[in-house]
Amino acid sequence: MKRTVFFVSESTGITAETLGHSLLSQFDSIDFEQVYMPYINTELRAQALTQRMQEAAERDGVRPLVFSTMLDDRIREILRGGNCYFLELFEGFVDPLSCELGIAPSRRSGRSHAITKPSSYTKRIEAINFAMANDDGMRPDNFARADLVLTGVSRSGKTPTCLYLAIHYGLRAANYPITEEDFERGDFPTEVTGCRHKLFGLTIEAQRLKLIREERRRGSRYASLEQCQADIRRAEDLFKRHAIPVLNTTSQSIEEISSHILRSVKGQVD
Amino acid sequence: MKRTVFFVSESTGITAETLGHSLLSQFDSIDFEQVYMPYINTELRAQALTQRMQEAAERDGVRPLVFSTMLDDRIREILRGGNCYFLELFEGFVDPLSCELGIAPSRRSGRSHAITKPSSYTKRIEAINFAMANDDGMRPDNFARADLVLTGVSRSGKTPTCLYLAIHYGLRAANYPITEEDFERGDFPTEVTGCRHKLFGLTIEAQRLKLIREERRRGSRYASLEQCQADIRRAEDLFKRHAIPVLNTTSQSIEEISSHILRSVKGQVD
Repeated sequence: MKRTVFFVSESTGITAETLGHSLLSQFDSIDFEQVYMPYINTELRAQALTQRMQEAAERDGVRPLVFSTMLDDRIREILRGGNCYFLELFEGFVDPLSCELGIAPSRRSGRSHAITKPSSYTKRIEAINFAMANDDGMRPDNFARADLVLTGVSRSGKTPTCLYLAIHYGLRAANYPITEEDFERGDFPTEVTGCRHKLFGLTIEAQRLKLIREERRRGSRYASLEQCQADIRRAEDLFKRHAIPVLNTTSQSIEEISSHILRSVKGQVD
Repeated sequence: MKRTVFFVSESTGITAETLGHSLLSQFDSIDFEQVYMPYINTELRAQALTQRMQEAAERDGVRPLVFSTMLDDRIREILRGGNCYFLELFEGFVDPLSCELGIAPSRRSGRSHAITKPSSYTKRIEAINFAMANDDGMRPDNFARADLVLTGVSRSGKTPTCLYLAIHYGLRAANYPITEEDFERGDFPTEVTGCRHKLFGLTIEAQRLKLIREERRRGSRYASLEQCQADIRRAEDLFKRHAIPVLNTTSQSIEEISSHILRSVKGQVD
């Protein structure tokens, strides 16, 4: 049985989508058809959406779920009146918080993902540019300016993780792929060992690495299980020798890897 | 007055942070010191955190706020017992949802940002690789394989937006910078006009563009107000001629721009 879910907001809808996803992940035996509806910021749009709710209810044979973060009372009441199970995600928190903080909420919508602090937004954009310019070990001479440097064998997940850390946390994340040249030399180049305190090693199971490399160069020596095993073993030896913290990316998402790194970068280790 | 806020979870904490940020943005006259605490997944870590709460309370002269998404009852009760104003963000929603859906929640933690569907995770990683390989008009022959192509003058926000769309929504987003060559030719190259239906034009106010370009090449002709104005005017003429939808990025974040694009890509326009 399919059940439609709408994530609705008067602005980006990112909060509704994030909390909504989290809640749905507690009920993963159900096949949810997820529809993202940002910028429902007029009564006309809200009415059009109630029409879509009705269509979904008829198609699925059950009323859709609506996850909403809506500060506008009139629009919220239009949506709540539709044929749906309506969950307003802000409602229960704003008043208690207001009470605890002793001030009234601004009730302005669309603040959470807008540019409210230009300096921190600029920092994120600069971090993205830095990550792009320092991907794949392009400029080891820039590592001194990095907040952190990820290293690991080819296709161990360095690039997506660097981009995630830059976009979300404004961290200047560079990465250095360990290559045959390093293995032959028996060590990292000096630019890498010189920033040992900001290095993170990514490792991965050989079978998984083989699958990822096969996508890139099917049937190659590069993608063979033997080569993957040898690369990983030699990379892990290097991590060990330099006491570099290691994360295994085999079954972790970039969000999970990034959270582990962030925890460590900020010294939140106990 | 400063007030400390902890975002706490037994896994990545992304949901706690996202909803917490949204709620705090309603009280933007207060200076919040935000501390991100993922992977509070043992009683020991929870106890260490209550210690930090106490320190924050003494330092700030007021108890800290805690935004938590915690499924483990014992850990949650340890945190709630600390010197803090504790808000559990899942609690109020899981039971009503369970009732509406007619099934029990799994109560497994860390599901929302884990790799629960390998196929959709792989799609995201492939989209990131695609965005990296097709940044800055590097391979216009690949535009046929793109889900969408952003175009605009240099520094109008194309690259960060493409990366965000790839990372979060698994969209294969390429971008094409409009250059002097295009202006001289008086049109886009055929690879661009050939995918007109998936083009989005980004535009920006000249004063803002000048500031961004100054960061890159201070005092250059490229960063002069006259050049910025001329580039923008000619780019907007091209957008108009080809009926390309246009977004103004001057005061919009990449999250806001992406949400507008997503709304349009998915045909959610009314």
